Amino acid sequence: MFENKDNASTSIGDLGEFGLIDHLTKNFIIKQKSTVKGIGDDAAVIACDSKKELVVSTDLLLEGVHFDLSYMPLKHLGYKAVIVNLSDIYAMNAEPQQITVSIAASNRFPVEALEELYAGIEAAAKLYNVDVVGGDTTSSTTGLLISITALGTVKKGEAVYRSGSKENDLLVVTGDLGAAYMGLQILEREKEVFKVNPNSQPDLEPYSYLVERQLKPEARKDIPNLLKELDVKPTAMIDISDGLSSEILHICKSSKVGCNLYEDKIPLDPQVISTCEEFNLDSTTIALSGGEDYELLFTVKSEDFPKIKANPHLSIIGHITDEKEGVHLISRAGTKIPIIARGWNALNNNE
Amino acid sequence: MFENKDNASTSIGDLGEFGLIDHLTKNFIIKQKSTVKGIGDDAAVIACDSKKELVVSTDLLLEGVHFDLSYMPLKHLGYKAVIVNLSDIYAMNAEPQQITVSIAASNRFPVEALEELYAGIEAAAKLYNVDVVGGDTTSSTTGLLISITALGTVKKGEAVYRSGSKENDLLVVTGDLGAAYMGLQILEREKEVFKVNPNSQPDLEPYSYLVERQLKPEARKDIPNLLKELDVKPTAMIDISDGLSSEILHICKSSKVGCNLYEDKIPLDPQVISTCEEFNLDSTTIALSGGEDYELLFTVKSEDFPKIKANPHLSIIGHITDEKEGVHLISRAGTKIPIIARGWNALNNNE
Repeated sequence: MFENKDNASTSIGDLGEFGLIDHLTKNFIIKQKSTVKGIGDDAAVIACDSKKELVVSTDLLLEGVHFDLSYMPLKHLGYKAVIVNLSDIYAMNAEPQQITVSIAASNRFPVEALEELYAGIEAAAKLYNVDVVGGDTTSSTTGLLISITALGTVKKGEAVYRSGSKENDLLVVTGDLGAAYMGLQILEREKEVFKVNPNSQPDLEPYSYLVERQLKPEARKDIPNLLKELDVKPTAMIDISDGLSSEILHICKSSKVGCNLYEDKIPLDPQVISTCEEFNLDSTTIALSGGEDYELLFTVKSEDFPKIKANPHLSIIGHITDEKEGVHLISRAGTKIPIIARGWNALNNNE
Repeated sequence: MFENKDNASTSIGDLGEFGLIDHLTKNFIIKQKSTVKGIGDDAAVIACDSKKELVVSTDLLLEGVHFDLSYMPLKHLGYKAVIVNLSDIYAMNAEPQQITVSIAASNRFPVEALEELYAGIEAAAKLYNVDVVGGDTTSSTTGLLISITALGTVKKGEAVYRSGSKENDLLVVTGDLGAAYMGLQILEREKEVFKVNPNSQPDLEPYSYLVERQLKPEARKDIPNLLKELDVKPTAMIDISDGLSSEILHICKSSKVGCNLYEDKIPLDPQVISTCEEFNLDSTTIALSGGEDYELLFTVKSEDFPKIKANPHLSIIGHITDEKEGVHLISRAGTKIPIIARGWNALNNNE
């Protein structure tokens, strides 16, 4: 009766996820003096006491949109659901401490299936040293859904936002990119093979790193500590969940800066390169748009270069420019290509 | 491939919501010293500093399970989704300060529909003075889903748990009970009428209080303050979301006590009494099992009786006994009837 009574017809996909959040929350005002940072970063920041701030992040994972149980074992799904949230906490330069876990499951899932899911949640909570302190459990009319909220703490003034990048800062990324997306391609291919011949035995060995990055990602727990050891405080930071291009654009938009990203500096695993060749895909495009790598992307002052240059965990992939210079990829051939968001967009999946 | 690979077949409905949470989280251990209270109360409690504790609660609302958009306007739904969570914070004797709001919506919902939903969220946030600090927005393959996490603070040592009731404590409830459930019955009846004759004009006037309690519930923001003014600290407290009987059993189980509840003391609005007669329903059963009243149920020491006895917001409805005496309703006729949980169980809705 109600939801269709007017003639409105703007599709939510038209705005995209970030546009939609911006649009829906534009009237929201902050009134509590304890709210240090509201909507618009990897996590909200709340004042705790004179020494400490609280960091809060939340994510929703839906079957058929964010995961496919035909190749994602439930235990891995539980593990990944936790990792996705912890990654946001590390991206604030904070230490996660607690999570709440809410699930909705249809009666297709027996208790034993949920036990598997929770075993994955427990394994991640144990490894990352966080407590599961609450949640909600309910039935759904269809499918499985997981909503996790992560809480962490950071020393007052040490939280790193998306908005602090300045011209000439260096753009740095941890680990390597594109593997989780290529892992997904491998699993999708095996699913098709399985449909045709359920007895086929897939040989995933040549793709082991890719599949692991997709099915059992890890959050960069080590990076906030590493940065402390190196005595470097990033000027801005974000985690790579939607793809490098999307995250660079977030930092540039929040920080009101431009950026030059160098194609030849983007860290790629050899399996990503060989599998991209096999699939006839451009590995740079995959790194830019693949997503789900859960690496950290950050900027540091140029004078911090000596502190980070030789670190095996870190790759310097570009530098920050004035806003009016725009956001560009500098290709191997030296051409300047504008970067536009092509990250994986959960809002377009069911259109 | 994975979720059905074993022969497991315990339905999640067999355990019930609370049994399921207990079962799935029984291995979870608390390691963070900041975790004061984990799973098992209206909210988790986290140490903040030497003077303050943080309170966190989360709830999941699904279309087709928790709400029906054929009679629930989206603006009211947004409002109610916030209230449900704030009620849990008040039930800890805490003050809510921030919420995160995650939604998943299918492409059946245009942006304008989500604007309505967010207008309701904004209205509740404004009235209850909480900031919306984050969230997630995604598509769903079917229907609408809202996941809200509420954060609040309480002076260290002032949080009230379910577990503190002692023998001879008085059992107290705020407001009146059963109206939200009867409002739902009215709306369900009008929906059937509407299906037969879409031009019928329902006269909801005689049921205005009931319908408002269902469509626009309020959380008892006033009670933590009232208790401070009266200089009463409850020994245990819970909010009434699933029905009086279910909440009494939660307190008794957590506190390891029994309880006598007096039928003639249960506060009922005249509209509940008259509408129960019209529907040929027993009003005591409705108060015990209806749910969604979002009143607060608490126990106080018997010596606090003079402080609360004449308060129009509070009804003394029973007293706490030794655990081995069990949990009973003392009927108007004086018979002792064991109380069993018959609260509305979201896990049985789609069986």
